[in-house]
Formats: sequence, structure tokens, C-alpha cells
Amino acid sequence: MAKSNKREPVILITNDDGITAPGIKALIDAVKGLGKIVVVAPDKPQSGMGHAITIGNPLRLHPVHIFEGIEAWQCSGTPVDCVKLAVDKILRRKPDLCLSGINHGANHSINVIYSGTMSAAVEAAIESIPSVGFSSLDYDHEADLSVPKKYARIIVQNLLKNPINKHLILNVNFPAVIGAKIKGMKICRQAYAKYEEDFVAREDPNGRKYYWLTGKFVNFDKGKDTDVWALENDYVSVVPVQFDLTNFVIKALIEETWKLK
Amino acid sequence: MAKSNKREPVILITNDDGITAPGIKALIDAVKGLGKIVVVAPDKPQSGMGHAITIGNPLRLHPVHIFEGIEAWQCSGTPVDCVKLAVDKILRRKPDLCLSGINHGANHSINVIYSGTMSAAVEAAIESIPSVGFSSLDYDHEADLSVPKKYARIIVQNLLKNPINKHLILNVNFPAVIGAKIKGMKICRQAYAKYEEDFVAREDPNGRKYYWLTGKFVNFDKGKDTDVWALENDYVSVVPVQFDLTNFVIKALIEETWKLK
Repeated sequence: MAKSNKREPVILITNDDGITAPGIKALIDAVKGLGKIVVVAPDKPQSGMGHAITIGNPLRLHPVHIFEGIEAWQCSGTPVDCVKLAVDKILRRKPDLCLSGINHGANHSINVIYSGTMSAAVEAAIESIPSVGFSSLDYDHEADLSVPKKYARIIVQNLLKNPINKHLILNVNFPAVIGAKIKGMKICRQAYAKYEEDFVAREDPNGRKYYWLTGKFVNFDKGKDTDVWALENDYVSVVPVQFDLTNFVIKALIEETWKLK
Repeated sequence: MAKSNKREPVILITNDDGITAPGIKALIDAVKGLGKIVVVAPDKPQSGMGHAITIGNPLRLHPVHIFEGIEAWQCSGTPVDCVKLAVDKILRRKPDLCLSGINHGANHSINVIYSGTMSAAVEAAIESIPSVGFSSLDYDHEADLSVPKKYARIIVQNLLKNPINKHLILNVNFPAVIGAKIKGMKICRQAYAKYEEDFVAREDPNGRKYYWLTGKFVNFDKGKDTDVWALENDYVSVVPVQFDLTNFVIKALIEETWKLK
């Protein structure tokens, strides 16, 4: 077979459920053969870590041999730490793509902001590495991930052919339905939805209070172009995400209202 | 004196440097008399925690008496946890304003994403509480905060009179120059700037490697409408921030390129 002149793409893979979670194994399997895969992932669950980085403590980084034929490292830090360490200390050149997930649980709507999975993808894009975070609405670690795997491969093939933008970030969520029901992919905007907090208070054996975070998900957004709508209607949702948080609408409003010279 | 009929505004104050940091004391002093102040802040430094929330562990919350005449609580969690607990467990009604800071260190440009200070403000805005994060470029805990205090009071007075939007988030940074040099406030956009990582590798007494995160700040953005430009030119920078991360430009591009039916 004629060998292509094009160098093999490098794909960095991470997650926030930890390197032993089934989701990251599924993601590796999904994209096998599409490039050289390097895995750098947390050594323990890091869900809800958002864009946290480790400042006051040092980080550990160890090679692990749990994925056949794949270079893999476990890191004591957050998902964002993993991406930073991979770029600075592990990869000899900038990867062509960074993939994060497959997360066990939803990262649609406001979850994008709490999600370690998505923050790893955002960090990669800050480093000019196009990136995709994958999440399944099925929280069960035993869930069948064949549908997410199929779509992850299609998306990665598309992006390797046409990366679109070096700061590209896609937030891809899969509905928790069996394969036959899936209607396809939808490009969406982030729904305005949030959690109504309800901390559960308990008492420790010494009679002192402590609190567990719980909450009810509430969708305030009636739009049919949102990720929540797509997922409720059996579509795979794809939301392009950005790290420029400037609110230009409010910016114009304040310039008008505050009348600074 | 005639008592106003209007109820007194409630101002929630938090930070990420911890409840004993001089910055939060300065912020309390700055807005004293403008409303009923309630402080809920981390019991230890939480810099770089981004939008992390505490999921796998319970939280502690204790009243503290370190600010004269002010209700204050310290929380074992992240800045975002503090806001969530304040809203659910401490405040009887939604506060009129949430203030975060004054942070000891810059939160301009990409720092907004790593910053616990700003993530607390973002969380408040998700809860429909207009919010402002304040940060001084002077990292010194002994720094003179009289300029930040002066501007914080002006901004809070403005927002109590005209809150602009229930999801308002302002990212306010103060240059590290003495008062007389300050040229005023500028409404800005977030600069595209990032850290070039450079992890420092060391060996522990057992000969095993560990890494410290360090990095060089690099500004790729030549715009004169950015926060970095404003700060370099002795202005107080004010960037309106949003929590809808949808990239609508890329969304349109992908809809065009991927041609999903």
C-alpha cells in the first residue's frame, strides 16, 4: 500500500471521570486508526472541577499501561492540568486535535461551565488545539456507548479533514436512548437552564452540621435551537463553545448608560 | 431623618483568597453603608479554582466574627460553593448584588476563566444576581487598596441605582499604580492573551518527579479596546462577562460546512 506523505495526526485524549472510567476507553476505541493517540488523564474522578488549575501544590505524572498499544499517562491534577502538562511536558508537537470524555453524565446547557470534561477541551482551544468534549446523558458506567462511539468517530474524521478553526471547541452530548431512536446530529446553542440548589444538611457523629450539594435541573429556555431541546428530541447536540466571555450587548449598553468620557 | 420606604439592598460578598485576605476586608469597607452586607467566603485560599464545585465531599459552613457589625460565614468549599450555599442556606431573600474580591492579582484576559473570584461572580449571575468581581494587579497582600476601594464604591452605587440586567457580570481590574496616575475607567473586551506553560520539574526525597505550574503571560491581542491595553495605560478595566459560551460565528460556519439536513 502506498504510504501517504502526510504526517500522521496526533490526538490528545483526556477526561474528567479519571483514566480508568469506561468512557475514555470507549473514546480511544472510537478513534483508533485515525491518528497517533496520546492519553493524559486524571488519576481519580475530577467531575465538577470546572476550569480549576493546581497552583499551591505540585503535580504527579506517571505512565500507565492500561490501553493496548497506546501511550498513556495519569496525572494527579485537574483535567485542565492534564492538558497543560501534556502540551508542555509530554507531546513533542502540538496535537491536531484534543478529545475529552466520553463523560458519564450530561454537559449540556449551564453544565458546560462546571464540567471538567469541557474545561479540558476549552483549555486545549486556548492553546490553539481544536477540541471536542463528548458526554453521554446516561450516568451509568455500564451504559452502552456504541452510539457515542459511532458519532465521535464521524466528528473526528470530519475535523481531521477540515479542522474549521484552531480555537474550535465543540460540546457534544448524546441522549440516553438506544441507537435506533437517534435522529441525527443538531448544531445548537447553549440552553439557559440552571440548577435550583437544595443542599442537604446532616449532622456528623459530633453533632456538627455538614452539607451535601444537590439540586433540581430547571430549563428556562423554550427555544427549539438549544442543546436541551435537541437531546429531549433524540438528537445528538453539538454546541460550538468559546472562551472569550465578553458580553458585547451589555458592553454597548454600559457604554451608553455610564457615559464615561 | 426621614426613613426611606425602599427596603435596604442586600449585598453578598465573597472572594477566592479566603475570608482572612485583606482584599475582602477592603471590599467590605468600600461599600459600607450602601446596604446590608452578608459575607460568605472560603475558609482558605481558593485561587485558580475556576468554576469548580464540590460534588464528592460534604461542605462545612461556620459563622465568624471578624468584621465588626457584619454577618459573615466561612465555608470549606470553593468560591462557587460559597455563592450556592449563601443563596440556598443563608440569605432569606435574593441579594441585590454579589461582589467578589478584591482579588490579590490580575483577572484580566484569559484569567477570567481560571479565576475563583470571577467564577463566584458568574455563579451569582446564573442565579439572577447582578455581580461584580474586583481584582488588583498588585499581588502584594500589603498593597494600598485605596484606589480599588474608591472605584468599587462608585460602581456599586451606580449598580444599586441601575442594576442594568439581572445576569450582569462585570470583571473589574485595577492597575498596580498609585492613585494619582489612574486615568479613569474603561469598558473593555477580554483580550486574547494566554500563559505559555513552563512546568518546573523537581525530585522528591525518594527520587520521584513532581511538577510545579509556572508560565509566562503572553498577549496576542493588539487591540486598544481590551482590558490588557486599558490596564497597561493606567485605566481601570471593566469587562462585561457572560455565561452563555455559545460561539455563534462558528455555529453558522459549521451549519454551512457540515450540511446536516
